[in-house]
Amino acid sequence: MTEASHRIVLARRPQGTPVPGDFRLEGMAVPEPADGEVLARTIWLSLDPYMRGRISEGPSYAKGTAPGEPMQGEGVGQVLASRNASFAAGDFVAGHGGWQSHFVLHGDKLRRLDPKEAPLSTALGILGMPGMTAYTGLMAIGRPKAGETLVTGAASGAVGAVAGQIARLKGLRVVGIAGGAEKCRYVTDELGFDACLDRNQPDLAGRLRAACPDGVDIYVELTAGEPLWATLPLMNLFGRIPVIGGIANYNLNELPQGPDRSPLLMRQILIRRLTLRGMIVWDFSEMEAEFRREVSGWLRAGSIRYREDVTDGLENAPQAFIGMLEGRNFGKQLVRVSPDPTRPGQ
Amino acid sequence: MTEASHRIVLARRPQGTPVPGDFRLEGMAVPEPADGEVLARTIWLSLDPYMRGRISEGPSYAKGTAPGEPMQGEGVGQVLASRNASFAAGDFVAGHGGWQSHFVLHGDKLRRLDPKEAPLSTALGILGMPGMTAYTGLMAIGRPKAGETLVTGAASGAVGAVAGQIARLKGLRVVGIAGGAEKCRYVTDELGFDACLDRNQPDLAGRLRAACPDGVDIYVELTAGEPLWATLPLMNLFGRIPVIGGIANYNLNELPQGPDRSPLLMRQILIRRLTLRGMIVWDFSEMEAEFRREVSGWLRAGSIRYREDVTDGLENAPQAFIGMLEGRNFGKQLVRVSPDPTRPGQ
Repeated sequence: MTEASHRIVLARRPQGTPVPGDFRLEGMAVPEPADGEVLARTIWLSLDPYMRGRISEGPSYAKGTAPGEPMQGEGVGQVLASRNASFAAGDFVAGHGGWQSHFVLHGDKLRRLDPKEAPLSTALGILGMPGMTAYTGLMAIGRPKAGETLVTGAASGAVGAVAGQIARLKGLRVVGIAGGAEKCRYVTDELGFDACLDRNQPDLAGRLRAACPDGVDIYVELTAGEPLWATLPLMNLFGRIPVIGGIANYNLNELPQGPDRSPLLMRQILIRRLTLRGMIVWDFSEMEAEFRREVSGWLRAGSIRYREDVTDGLENAPQAFIGMLEGRNFGKQLVRVSPDPTRPGQ
Repeated sequence: MTEASHRIVLARRPQGTPVPGDFRLEGMAVPEPADGEVLARTIWLSLDPYMRGRISEGPSYAKGTAPGEPMQGEGVGQVLASRNASFAAGDFVAGHGGWQSHFVLHGDKLRRLDPKEAPLSTALGILGMPGMTAYTGLMAIGRPKAGETLVTGAASGAVGAVAGQIARLKGLRVVGIAGGAEKCRYVTDELGFDACLDRNQPDLAGRLRAACPDGVDIYVELTAGEPLWATLPLMNLFGRIPVIGGIANYNLNELPQGPDRSPLLMRQILIRRLTLRGMIVWDFSEMEAEFRREVSGWLRAGSIRYREDVTDGLENAPQAFIGMLEGRNFGKQLVRVSPDPTRPGQ
């Protein structure tokens, strides 16, 4: 094999917000698949906020990445060589290939993709982990009922946009919170939310109150920070809060100063009889078939939309990752590691 | 009717911790029952932490008490006069009679008590609202499984003591937190908890960690404050936290200074995939028959115990209420408003 391979490793643990020097690009030989394994060239790499937790010390969802190890992440690739009867060269696959130009995984860890069914990159977005996170968090924890009101932060992002659109399809009033006027226009005009509030403008709490005349029944927690505090006083009795993310907290080294708002949070949970539940998508893996059937149906029918924010080149993944943690992405953050042969000319 | 009647009204809204001057004793004529109503003399008055919320401004569970109105509360009384065919003079009844020496309620709002089945006062404690709160919070939100570990604050109190004992009967390891060595001895020696930690001694977090070698699956939130923070880092994946009370927060006028611990709370909910759910007992009213059957069975079998802290005289109710909010009661707080004829000599 003559292709050169490269990958991005964690150079050191970030202190607070990651900086480019926390990552390092390394060259390496293209790996060889063993029996049962498959070698693929990465086309698309997914960047997701949860990865921030994996590169910190301390408990997170899953085994973390130590300095010197390649960054973890899900990708879509094309098979170059297969020692697994279920896959052949040329096949498209999705799997946890990491921040690498090539990856080797056992066939059991790969999902075959059919580019005729949906664009390959959707396997990392609306038909992948972020879409299923939105679907399961909304359906299993949010338990939406027609006529209720849902608020989601990160409304133009990979999870919030899907949660809100599904809630609208289920007959809810849906109000998004997003960073900036352009994102808000997209959320209302393209995604069809009933309203979207710019979190960078003053008096988020007052504007949210005006946008939710019947209170809030479901709040999708993705961002941490002000959207939660603006929504909490509006929560109706028996409201549900799927706690899916907390981007603003991921980079916290120490607790912020100022008044301790935890008694306020606990008191609201008590008085309003709220349910908060932390989750990751695999807590609901039994819902995967239902998710794929429902969401791909809506996608084919054109009743649900998505947007991708594409950064070209593996070497630019750290900067894209940092930008995403700061909310600079606009839509599902992807890195195009090599050309997508199913999207010629792009 | 020649009996004089008296009652305690809210004189003004408390600022922070209530003081005796926030309450006022008033004399009045004994009220007359209208058609369908029953007049009773109060024997036992129940004092419960939730009442603190009812005398503040702002949202609480239910309609509050305004200055000049009688304090609300559940009591046990004996019928003096009845204009309801279901009740006769001499009957014992439980109902929301308020802080009054006599009360008139419609028969539909009363529950008849049989003193042969259980002491009258248990209708306000282990077989009443606090007991059912413990039962429903534990069973419906805590969902205990044998072999798990439960931690409860206010372990010698009316709710914590019952939740812990039921959890032990269900095969859990049960660790209490209580204020003072005497309460802790009672919790382990009389109630049979596996351990009980004095919250007034240093390093609650370290002692709790040592007492919970397998982590914590259920934390019963009754007290707010340090027990929550000591337990949070010990919570196992998918832990459940019924949020039943928050005594330490009830008197808060403003948020405490110091670091903001709310991001820590939200991050733990996310990382450990915890479920927090606020509740009041009537959210689970469909469980009332099951509660009464199970707990009265355990009570008759001697496998569950309770303790009462009795203050004599309606005029002393405010002081007893204030003491309870400060944790000075030891067991279910009651006021004996008039002698209990089923407990002669007491």
